[in-house]
Amino acid sequence: MKDKPLILITNDDGVNAKGIKELTECLRDLGDLVVFAPDGPRSGMSSAITSLIPVTYTLLKEEPGVRIYSCSGAPVDCVKLAVNNILDRKPDLLVSGINHGGNMAVCVHYSGTMGAAIEGCILDIPSIGISLTDYTEGAGFGECCRWGRKLARCVLREGLPAGTYLNLNIPPVSHVKDIKVCRQAAGRFINEYMQSENAAGDPVYWLTGCFDNAKPIHPENDTLALDAGYASLVPCRIDVTDYDFMQKLHLILKD
Amino acid sequence: MKDKPLILITNDDGVNAKGIKELTECLRDLGDLVVFAPDGPRSGMSSAITSLIPVTYTLLKEEPGVRIYSCSGAPVDCVKLAVNNILDRKPDLLVSGINHGGNMAVCVHYSGTMGAAIEGCILDIPSIGISLTDYTEGAGFGECCRWGRKLARCVLREGLPAGTYLNLNIPPVSHVKDIKVCRQAAGRFINEYMQSENAAGDPVYWLTGCFDNAKPIHPENDTLALDAGYASLVPCRIDVTDYDFMQKLHLILKD
Repeated sequence: MKDKPLILITNDDGVNAKGIKELTECLRDLGDLVVFAPDGPRSGMSSAITSLIPVTYTLLKEEPGVRIYSCSGAPVDCVKLAVNNILDRKPDLLVSGINHGGNMAVCVHYSGTMGAAIEGCILDIPSIGISLTDYTEGAGFGECCRWGRKLARCVLREGLPAGTYLNLNIPPVSHVKDIKVCRQAAGRFINEYMQSENAAGDPVYWLTGCFDNAKPIHPENDTLALDAGYASLVPCRIDVTDYDFMQKLHLILKD
Repeated sequence: MKDKPLILITNDDGVNAKGIKELTECLRDLGDLVVFAPDGPRSGMSSAITSLIPVTYTLLKEEPGVRIYSCSGAPVDCVKLAVNNILDRKPDLLVSGINHGGNMAVCVHYSGTMGAAIEGCILDIPSIGISLTDYTEGAGFGECCRWGRKLARCVLREGLPAGTYLNLNIPPVSHVKDIKVCRQAAGRFINEYMQSENAAGDPVYWLTGCFDNAKPIHPENDTLALDAGYASLVPCRIDVTDYDFMQKLHLILKD
C-alpha cells in the first residue's frame, strides 16, 4: 500500500496563528501532516537563517495524521530543521501560510512565508506559499482554504518543475472569482518610514509605506488580478540569473 | 559642474567590519560616499525587514566625501532608511560588502549582503553585492577591492538594466585570474545541523552543512568559476517569475 502523501506545513506568523490552524484543518484529509512552525511571529523574515545562535524545537501535539512542532527559529530554519531532523522522508508537498497579509509583487523578497516556500523548493520539495491580502484583525481565511486546498491537490497530483515554487495570494472578498496565473508586478514601496520618538525623546523610525506599481502596468501582473477580485498565482524560480543580460555584461566588462 | 557620483555603501557584517572599511577606502575617489550599515553582524538576514520594532541610526563620522552611519536594523532596513531619510538624491550606485564569506549559488537567497543589493535594485539604484569566499579570520580583501573597484567604475559608466543587480564573488587566492560572467549554480546544502546541548542538557541545533552542487554541473556556473580561481559575476533579476511555466500551470489548473 502506498503511503499517504507527507505534507509539511509552516508559516511566518507563528504556530499559534489562525491562518496556519485553518490551513492545517483544510489539508488534513490530503495526507500525513507535519506542522513545524516558528514559536511566534516572524513576519518579514524573508529567507533569513539563524547561524549565530542554535535553534530548538518542541513537539506540541500529536494526533492521528497530524504532528505539530514549535521552533525557535525563522521560517527557513523551520523547513531546514524539519527536513533534516524530523521527517523520515522527503515531503511530497510543503505549504507555507496562510499568511495574514499579502505577499504579491516584490513582497516575495521580504516575506517569511515565501522564504519558507523558497527553502522547500531549494530542498526539492514542491512548495506553495499562501497569503491573504487582508490586514484587518478578524480577516477570514475561508477563500484561502478553498483555493489553497484546490492548489495543494493539483500540485500533489502533477508536481512542479525542479526549481519552481508557487506564490498564491487571495484578495479580501467573500467570493474569489477565479484563480489567475500571473507575473510578479514591478514596483516598489514609497514613503517607507514614519518618524516617532522613544521615551528619551530620541527619533525612531517605523517601517510603513505604500506600494507603487511601476508604469506601464502589465495586464497579467499579480496586483491587478487581486484588485479585480481574483486569486493570483505566480510561479517563481529559485535561479535568479538574468540570462538575457549575461552576454551584454560580458561585453561591457571587456571594454 | 556635474555632481560627483553618489555611492551608498552597506553590508551585513556590520559597520565596523574589515570588509566594509576596505571597500570604502578603495571607492573613496570614485564619488561622494555614504556608508550606512548595521551596528553589528547581520549575516544570513536575507531581505528581512524590521517592522515590529522601530529602527534608529547614528552618524558616526563625517569627513570630506565620506559620511558613516550605524543603524540598528538589518541590511535592507539600512538601504531603505538611507534612501528615504538620509540621502538628498538617488544614489548612482549601491555597493554591499565586502562580505566575509561566499554568496554564490543559492546563498543569494540567504545573504544579507545580497538582500541589500536586491533592495537597492528594487529602489532603482544600480546595485552590486561583493563577497569573499574565504572563511579564515585573517582573510585579505585585496583582490576583492581590485575587482570590486573595477566593477563599480564599469557600472557607474554603463548603468544596469532596470530590475537587474550583480552578485560578485571572489575566491581566496592571492591573484584572481579574471572575472567570469556566470549563472547561479543549482544545488543545496546537505547535513545542515550539528546537535549539541545547552546548559540544562537539552538538545540544541547549530546550522552547518556543506554545499552539494546539483548534477549535471553547468560549465558556466559560479561555484565552478570560483573553484578554478576566477571571480564569478552573476547578473540577477528582481522579477522571479517563471515565465516558461506560466502557460503549463494555467493548463494544469484547468484540468
